[in-house]
Amino acid sequence: MSAHTYALDDWRICDAAFNPERNLLDETLFALGNGYIGLRGTQDEGFSGLPTGSVDGTYLNGFYESTPIAHPEIAYGLASHTQFMLNVPNGKRVELWLEDEGLDLSQGRITHYERALDFREGVLRRTLRWTSPQGRHVEVVSERLVCLLRKHVYAIRYAVRPLNFSGRVALVSRLEGRVKNIEAGDDPRVGAHLGIPPLKWIEAQQGELRSRLVHRTRQSDFLLVSALDHAWEGPADVEITRDSLGSGQCLNHVFTAQVEEGQTVRLTKLGAYHSSRDYPEAELLLRSDEALSQARADGFDVLVREQAEALAAFWRDADVEIGGDPALQQGMRFNEFHLLQSVGRDGRTNISAKGLTGEGYEGHYFWDTEIYVFPFFVATQPQVARQLLAYRYAGLPAARRRARQMAHAQGALYPWRTIAGDECSAYFPAGTAQFHINADIAHSIKLYVEVTGDERFLREQGAEIVMETARIWMDLGSFDPRRGGAFCIHEVTGPDEYTAMVSNNFYTNAMAQQHLAFAASVAERLQRKYPRDFARIATAMALAADEPARWARAAEAMYLPLDEALGIHPQDDSFLHKPVWDFANTPPANYPLLLNYHPLVIYRHQVCKQADVVLALLLRGDSFTLEQKRRDYDYYEPITTHDSSLSACIFSILASEVGYEDKAYRYFMHTARLDLDNEHGNTQHGVHTAAMAGTWLAVVQGFAGLRLHGGQLSLAPRLPAHWTHYSFRIRLRGRQLEVRVRPGEVEYSLLEGEALELRHGTELVRLNSRQPVKTRPMATRPTAADIASGPALEPCA
Amino acid sequence: MSAHTYALDDWRICDAAFNPERNLLDETLFALGNGYIGLRGTQDEGFSGLPTGSVDGTYLNGFYESTPIAHPEIAYGLASHTQFMLNVPNGKRVELWLEDEGLDLSQGRITHYERALDFREGVLRRTLRWTSPQGRHVEVVSERLVCLLRKHVYAIRYAVRPLNFSGRVALVSRLEGRVKNIEAGDDPRVGAHLGIPPLKWIEAQQGELRSRLVHRTRQSDFLLVSALDHAWEGPADVEITRDSLGSGQCLNHVFTAQVEEGQTVRLTKLGAYHSSRDYPEAELLLRSDEALSQARADGFDVLVREQAEALAAFWRDADVEIGGDPALQQGMRFNEFHLLQSVGRDGRTNISAKGLTGEGYEGHYFWDTEIYVFPFFVATQPQVARQLLAYRYAGLPAARRRARQMAHAQGALYPWRTIAGDECSAYFPAGTAQFHINADIAHSIKLYVEVTGDERFLREQGAEIVMETARIWMDLGSFDPRRGGAFCIHEVTGPDEYTAMVSNNFYTNAMAQQHLAFAASVAERLQRKYPRDFARIATAMALAADEPARWARAAEAMYLPLDEALGIHPQDDSFLHKPVWDFANTPPANYPLLLNYHPLVIYRHQVCKQADVVLALLLRGDSFTLEQKRRDYDYYEPITTHDSSLSACIFSILASEVGYEDKAYRYFMHTARLDLDNEHGNTQHGVHTAAMAGTWLAVVQGFAGLRLHGGQLSLAPRLPAHWTHYSFRIRLRGRQLEVRVRPGEVEYSLLEGEALELRHGTELVRLNSRQPVKTRPMATRPTAADIASGPALEPCA
Repeated sequence: MSAHTYALDDWRICDAAFNPERNLLDETLFALGNGYIGLRGTQDEGFSGLPTGSVDGTYLNGFYESTPIAHPEIAYGLASHTQFMLNVPNGKRVELWLEDEGLDLSQGRITHYERALDFREGVLRRTLRWTSPQGRHVEVVSERLVCLLRKHVYAIRYAVRPLNFSGRVALVSRLEGRVKNIEAGDDPRVGAHLGIPPLKWIEAQQGELRSRLVHRTRQSDFLLVSALDHAWEGPADVEITRDSLGSGQCLNHVFTAQVEEGQTVRLTKLGAYHSSRDYPEAELLLRSDEALSQARADGFDVLVREQAEALAAFWRDADVEIGGDPALQQGMRFNEFHLLQSVGRDGRTNISAKGLTGEGYEGHYFWDTEIYVFPFFVATQPQVARQLLAYRYAGLPAARRRARQMAHAQGALYPWRTIAGDECSAYFPAGTAQFHINADIAHSIKLYVEVTGDERFLREQGAEIVMETARIWMDLGSFDPRRGGAFCIHEVTGPDEYTAMVSNNFYTNAMAQQHLAFAASVAERLQRKYPRDFARIATAMALAADEPARWARAAEAMYLPLDEALGIHPQDDSFLHKPVWDFANTPPANYPLLLNYHPLVIYRHQVCKQADVVLALLLRGDSFTLEQKRRDYDYYEPITTHDSSLSACIFSILASEVGYEDKAYRYFMHTARLDLDNEHGNTQHGVHTAAMAGTWLAVVQGFAGLRLHGGQLSLAPRLPAHWTHYSFRIRLRGRQLEVRVRPGEVEYSLLEGEALELRHGTELVRLNSRQPVKTRPMATRPTAADIASGPALEPCA
Repeated sequence: MSAHTYALDDWRICDAAFNPERNLLDETLFALGNGYIGLRGTQDEGFSGLPTGSVDGTYLNGFYESTPIAHPEIAYGLASHTQFMLNVPNGKRVELWLEDEGLDLSQGRITHYERALDFREGVLRRTLRWTSPQGRHVEVVSERLVCLLRKHVYAIRYAVRPLNFSGRVALVSRLEGRVKNIEAGDDPRVGAHLGIPPLKWIEAQQGELRSRLVHRTRQSDFLLVSALDHAWEGPADVEITRDSLGSGQCLNHVFTAQVEEGQTVRLTKLGAYHSSRDYPEAELLLRSDEALSQARADGFDVLVREQAEALAAFWRDADVEIGGDPALQQGMRFNEFHLLQSVGRDGRTNISAKGLTGEGYEGHYFWDTEIYVFPFFVATQPQVARQLLAYRYAGLPAARRRARQMAHAQGALYPWRTIAGDECSAYFPAGTAQFHINADIAHSIKLYVEVTGDERFLREQGAEIVMETARIWMDLGSFDPRRGGAFCIHEVTGPDEYTAMVSNNFYTNAMAQQHLAFAASVAERLQRKYPRDFARIATAMALAADEPARWARAAEAMYLPLDEALGIHPQDDSFLHKPVWDFANTPPANYPLLLNYHPLVIYRHQVCKQADVVLALLLRGDSFTLEQKRRDYDYYEPITTHDSSLSACIFSILASEVGYEDKAYRYFMHTARLDLDNEHGNTQHGVHTAAMAGTWLAVVQGFAGLRLHGGQLSLAPRLPAHWTHYSFRIRLRGRQLEVRVRPGEVEYSLLEGEALELRHGTELVRLNSRQPVKTRPMATRPTAADIASGPALEPCA
């Protein structure tokens, strides 16, 4: 038996037996989504058997309810409300009755079971043969998809064939409005504090084949239309009845027919969700009808074909091929597939920490987007990355309001966690105190502009975000006369949540430095190249003439200390003074530490939940020598627990860079199959989208060493020991570059766009037309000295 | 008009007019208590008029309900439940009917009103003449007392005399069980999160003159008996009826009689509370009956006489006479009177932050007891101080449990706030993180033993507390090789709650140093003098042979840095690096800062809520030179907001010590009348017991300069500019010393006990027999050099 959850397969996950013990995990892994609708991979008929039960969730990206946060001890400016991703009415259910026996996976006998999700198809397909307690043998093939090209539509086809009997077969298709979210329990990472049910039933409508439930959220005040349509393929004399339960809260369509042995009947369910978060309330019903009518007219097969086409396009850009390690290949593609399924693409939504697959972290968006997920999309689907930035731009007014609340007279402070833009951190020391969120967003804008050259975005949205958010650092920090006037930042929490509210967190200072310098340069560039845009923005934000110069001065004076004794960057002012955590006497069961030790116990030790200094070394990679990176890596690695899923991928990349190939590979393995093999033990509550993107980063930035510093593209590919090859494609300023690495050979191909220069290690590679360039992988990484002595190249335009 | 709440009077507060706007404040200031029962100073008839309404509270010290703390983001080891002081059934109410007209202070016309509380009587007396809307003129004299000598008993006498009519007069005496606590609102310092009513009604019993309500608390599972008895003085043909409201939740006795013009009728109400926190459940009813029967047999006048005797004894020991400033004299006595009323004396209870006068801080006990209140009692009523320590000893098992939860394999960690011993901090950065509570308790034990010489306490309880709590420092701190092996303590919050979770908080380190050294010396002394006690304790706590030596080593190596540039003690490692708060641009309305700025905004600045370093300079006064104290004072005073009521008194004392006489006086004024003049604007929710004790400290330790370092008594009295004299008495090892200060003269008298040496400035004063010694007040304070060159004296035994 393999230790893997499912059999290894390059392009799909496939489960060959129904496993009640693993039901919650399967529901997450087989979840479908299109960036808007998310359906957990539940059994069509539902499953309430022991031991884990089921979270029969249906989620809409950005569709949230707001509830007050009941702080047991209130303080000024604490986040007053949380927003959480709602579990919306469930249209997934189809019940099957064979005469008087209902199909129930926990009853009777399953004689064949296969559930598979092919990443090129995007259709969840279950083939089941089941014998009822009374001996009726039936084959059921169900297919489910969430249309990647139709934001509001999902579809289910449920086919039934009696194998050893003829008789009355009934299919009950349900639209269930009596749904609720998980209640909060002992794990701080899961569940909401609900109170009364957040969805208020407004009305139910039911025709012969269509059903519609209309709800309104109580606090966020959104109207939601959940609708179903049906198509029947089978005996024409089917009897179609309908009923409603719970005073119209749950609508059923019952299709009953006499079916002969061997005959197949099929019920197609088409579902749609429309909410007033996207459209005026008055349009919702009509839009719902139109979407369903169109889908019905096109038919299920067309939806399947469309889905495959959409995925083919995705994989053309995004596929990372890995030869020689099927487990990693499967993990990589599974992760990329889920990123596509999870990411909001409408400029009003983002990608939540758990995608649309579960209720962990209440469906909140974090910095995970900008620092982990964004580089994947900007390199493979820049148009999606653009929408993620549009989401942040839409959040600027809320970020400005939050800044005022936090005593900033000017500027914008983005929330640590949110859906609609308001701060939702219930525990500010590891929430609001992570001010680096502002720099992370600025970093993604910088990256976006460098990769795409999209200056229009900068003029229309980007510059305003970058400058407004930069202002906050001028309040958070100050020139410390006791440190020779260095710009110091107090009372912040860095990425490492095992340390809180410190002075001069290295990551924060390093990223603030980049942010301030970038803001100053954006101001300068705009003023020079687009004076009208600059004037408009400057007026809107009441920008003082000397502000950009002050940002530049703060950036220059930024305090980034190096500890002389150890030759490393202290994570913060107090960090190196604290005793190192007693790892030797910490039993494995006590990890993650956060579930077993009071925060104060953790905070007073040198112990990291995740990459902090090490992450800064990656994002600000051009500012530190390789030797420096190795020293920092060597120091922080032994004291990092990787209790956060955001950690392993970053350590993999840095291990690659500093030449620890085995470690790079081990960390990569942990990241690549983190969800597939449930390595953190909580994938039941949703996938870890940041770690999924981290898998891509670990190959592209780690093994292939891709960097884009100062607009200069460089790579330094190595082939991990037992791989036969790997390849990937990236987009850069209208070009598409393919990188293929085989034993002894690296092949660069320019698939689209104009000529391109890149650095291969210390070598300069010029790519033009369609002629690939072949060279050799790196044996070892070049040192800073190597690189400095190598050829300079112009940033590509 | 005076700015004072009530007319100035040396021995009482007296209100000459009913003031609805001030009702809540009056209720607090006229509150009565005996350390167990607390009755807010409500109007007998109740008052629900606008604008402030009424909090008709009745509290029992230590009688609490427990409710879960709903942390919006849970973490390991956070306090799971809070305990809060319950509002218990209200027996204070007497309603008066004149024919068909009820006495209502918001109706009719008040022709005379006087409410007074004399601190020598301890009886709240209201004289009221009132004309009803229909013109009936009546005089009502009501008296209320909570028996200082009868823990469970209070009494009310209500006398009525028709002034211009004869007719039917009815008095309705009520026992109201439908009571509840204030719900939490926007002020973090007031209110509980309740849910369902915590008192469950068990039964009601009602005889002709007696009523009894029995309740059980839902979570803490205490049984409570609230009982009333009545005595009638008036026409013998009084009609006595009873009724009950709300299914027996509220019991009334109605006394109706025909009363002639000029005739006086009196109803005496005797009340008692008994709970299973004190006695077995089966004894409660009997004990209640006995207490009431005894009180009834003795009669109201005897209770009044007893009360006066008890108070005479109190004032004999505790009175601080101040000549020449009636406002301060009144404030001082008011404060001392409330301390007596508030302090628990049964070894199971303590003194809560708001005494028994209101629901602020949920009735919790804090370090306020040990650092502010304890020195007052140990010097005036050492037997009460002993009970406060017994309370802490009773909490040792809970403190041990809490230590385990906080990952300490050994030792005991006292809760930051509690009633029954469990940690009730809902916000740990300014709660549990204040680990100095352990050192504060050890400090009070050290002080108690020095003042009383009670070694039996040390052997039976004190040593165990001191050593178990000392152990925690060995986990919290470590010898930092980066600081030459100094013992450093990370991730604590000091007294100043405008800074949180820092390294090497000066107060914490200084107090931990004293604690560790004291623990080592206690171990040594016990081992030498009482080896059997030592062996017993050592076995019970599994004390390793080398632990005391390790404590001593940590104490010696304690990190107490002095900043060379400024010549001051930094409040913590990061403090001096932070920018100073922008006081110039902070409008007065923005104080207290905690109600107007997010904690992170406050934390990242140099700004103090209260004395921190400055408090350490007082408590560890023999470790710092006067010059050093002055430098620290000068640095910290301008950045301290005194937003905490614990601050002004300490600054007053230090100002006295370093020679800032005007400042000492100004801070003293703020402290002395803080509640009487409602200077913090929240006395409505209860008095500030720590500041009340601080008033005494500011005279005795401030103006008179009393210190007891190393068992040596020293004084350095000065007379504030416009005072004619002041005097006070203290107890020390079986002696009682009186200090009288007049212009040009200090008189020391030994009222009781053996001969005593003390240091008067640099002078040595020998006191024996009853012969007072006269000398001169200090013009200026002696410097460290002066003192060092003065005579040495033996600690008194």
